[in-house]
Amino acid sequence: GSVDKAADFANYFCTYAFLYHQKEMLSDRVRMDAYYNAIFRNARHFQGKTVLDVGTGSGILAIWAAQAGAQKVYAVEATNMAGHARTVAVGNGVDHIVEVIEGSIEDINLPEKVDIIISEWMGYFLVRESMFDSVIHARDRWLKPNGMMYPSHARMWVAPMQTSLGEHKVQEYHNSMSDWSHFLHETSSQYGVDMSLLTDPYRQEQRKYFLQTSLWNNLYPNQIIGPPAVVKEFDCRTATLDEVSSVHSSFRIPLDSGHQSLCGFAGWFDVHFKGCPSDPADHEVELTTAPSLEDSTHWGQQVFLLHPPISYRDGDILNGTMEITRSTYNHRLMDVNFLHNLERPGSRPTEQVVSAFFIE
Amino acid sequence: GSVDKAADFANYFCTYAFLYHQKEMLSDRVRMDAYYNAIFRNARHFQGKTVLDVGTGSGILAIWAAQAGAQKVYAVEATNMAGHARTVAVGNGVDHIVEVIEGSIEDINLPEKVDIIISEWMGYFLVRESMFDSVIHARDRWLKPNGMMYPSHARMWVAPMQTSLGEHKVQEYHNSMSDWSHFLHETSSQYGVDMSLLTDPYRQEQRKYFLQTSLWNNLYPNQIIGPPAVVKEFDCRTATLDEVSSVHSSFRIPLDSGHQSLCGFAGWFDVHFKGCPSDPADHEVELTTAPSLEDSTHWGQQVFLLHPPISYRDGDILNGTMEITRSTYNHRLMDVNFLHNLERPGSRPTEQVVSAFFIE
Ligand SMILES: Nc1ncnc2c1ncn2[C@@H]1O[C@H](CSCC[C@H](N)C(=O)O)[C@@H](O)[C@H]1O
Ligand SMILES: Nc1ncnc2c1ncn2[C@@H]1O[C@H](CSCC[C@H](N)C(=O)O)[C@@H](O)[C@H]1O
Repeated sequence: GSVDKAADFANYFCTYAFLYHQKEMLSDRVRMDAYYNAIFRNARHFQGKTVLDVGTGSGILAIWAAQAGAQKVYAVEATNMAGHARTVAVGNGVDHIVEVIEGSIEDINLPEKVDIIISEWMGYFLVRESMFDSVIHARDRWLKPNGMMYPSHARMWVAPMQTSLGEHKVQEYHNSMSDWSHFLHETSSQYGVDMSLLTDPYRQEQRKYFLQTSLWNNLYPNQIIGPPAVVKEFDCRTATLDEVSSVHSSFRIPLDSGHQSLCGFAGWFDVHFKGCPSDPADHEVELTTAPSLEDSTHWGQQVFLLHPPISYRDGDILNGTMEITRSTYNHRLMDVNFLHNLERPGSRPTEQVVSAFFIE
Repeated sequence: GSVDKAADFANYFCTYAFLYHQKEMLSDRVRMDAYYNAIFRNARHFQGKTVLDVGTGSGILAIWAAQAGAQKVYAVEATNMAGHARTVAVGNGVDHIVEVIEGSIEDINLPEKVDIIISEWMGYFLVRESMFDSVIHARDRWLKPNGMMYPSHARMWVAPMQTSLGEHKVQEYHNSMSDWSHFLHETSSQYGVDMSLLTDPYRQEQRKYFLQTSLWNNLYPNQIIGPPAVVKEFDCRTATLDEVSSVHSSFRIPLDSGHQSLCGFAGWFDVHFKGCPSDPADHEVELTTAPSLEDSTHWGQQVFLLHPPISYRDGDILNGTMEITRSTYNHRLMDVNFLHNLERPGSRPTEQVVSAFFIE
């Protein structure tokens, strides 16, 4: 679908223009520790270097880069957070190094190319928001040939899971459809208009809302019932727009015994700070958003529920493909399709099932 | 502020594209009864006439107009609801009369001028959403010289009120600011960055959010502590864009005795279906969104809370002006300013207070 840029920006940037939202990200300890360690344990990479921070928000990464010894940091931010980032740079005595530029990275100009691009661009399940597009754009235009990306790598994971969330959603869906019947009756008896031809579209809308939209959740590790599979790995130095805008992948996961039902799929991501091949990091850092008791993040996991859950037997293997494409009506949202079945040792595999979801 | 049309449309129309939202409006009994009675008790106005429904949504008003005897109804709708309206017209056997046109009223063309414009354009406190602009636009372009508006009149009301909502909001605001202090401490001690220069902007953002944004509420009639005042009356046949885009008004309200504290202002509206001077309605109908035990609407009332509440004595008179202008960053939202004080019999009036609010 074609994108109207003004409409897209108005919608996308409005949350980031609130300090409240920036504060939420700045309070995510796992996220903060990862970037902090990545920068200060590899301060050597930053010393005397020129850095670009794509989407600086409150300015935090740019200021860290300056504190780690960068000679110059360009901190680009599309929203009016830019003014606040400038204030924070002054307050921390690095405004001679950090230059905040208000504008979208696609539109602004820099006086020079940079040695390092640093950015925190990851959305839910990595790809929601499509902000990596802007980082790729910045890289192709502003990174020196042997420049470095912080983070350098990103991976998307999927895993089978159990939960009781689905029952609740199904109940809400049924309630909504019985409200609808009541509504049809009232509208016809009180107001003389028959709306029953809208039942199918209404059902479709409500199914999408209650049953097919992925959910944000912080899962417990024991809700995962088989080894997670990497569905995609990006090398941030070489990834292309084509590569990030649609993902096709397959997985084959032996399900844990002792459980009986596959309730859905969980999706999450991790990113790595490894430097680059010619100058690897002294201390590699990982930021993972996998289910965790102690180290959960504001990203949580995305949950794709199966309705109904699929019962399985000990020894079954979950076989599937996952296809992630951009929503035609908003390129920052995603359509996700799973095609899956169970392989059973000693008998025929089950029928293939298509499960269609939306990341909203 | 200048408005980017694509961005505005993308933001504004997205809720109306859901049947769920149309159903909420169609389930508002007070709203439905008013339009139903206005049309069928004055069916004479519609018989043999040409009608334009501005923003037909599910098509309900257009279908009623056809059922009441209109010869032709143009039903214009900007969202994909247009397709559903067409389906409902077919299902009710009036598709030879109701012609659904998908597009914004500002952009589409009709083959002729019309005798009646009908529309349900009212937002919270009447003016939120600014959809009346589109109705004025349609009227000036498509209504015959002696044509009729349904509704024909609209009024905005304001009244002094009591509530305990304010204490809760103040508490939330204080909690938010003490979170902020904690956050400043962590960010500086754990991550070496001082964000304290952002305290003022953060406070301002949180004040706006918790204390200055008007609230949706369904008030009990006994929460109103003085006679409501009309702040504005529109004649829909003659109202101009200038007149609707900023409202200045004054009020003088004797406060009920027996209470002690003025907690804020409540705002609501009513509209009337009176036909037109040359052909008045046989049965005038009123749709009011005033506080009510039995006849509450989905519009509820807008509540503007004073922090802290103002104590008053028996005999005090609330004196004030109210100014409603459009938000500079979104013309569909409003800035509201009250300037008010108390007149006391036998002593000097209290100091004037400015209270600034946002309708978001
Ligand atoms: N194309 C673009 N150009 C400039 N800024 C962008 C952008 N796309 C997203 N952003 C900004 O990027 C930020 C991402 S959130 C991360 C903020 C900050 N770097 C931190 O780590 O805390 C948001 O503030 C958003 O407004
Ligand atoms: N400028 C414009 N052009 C066309 N439709 C518009 C419009 N502004 C608002 N609308 C539509 O007007 C409707 C208002 S809600 C009222 C719907 C319907 N008439 C009913 O009474 O139930 C929405 O469906 C909205 O999408």
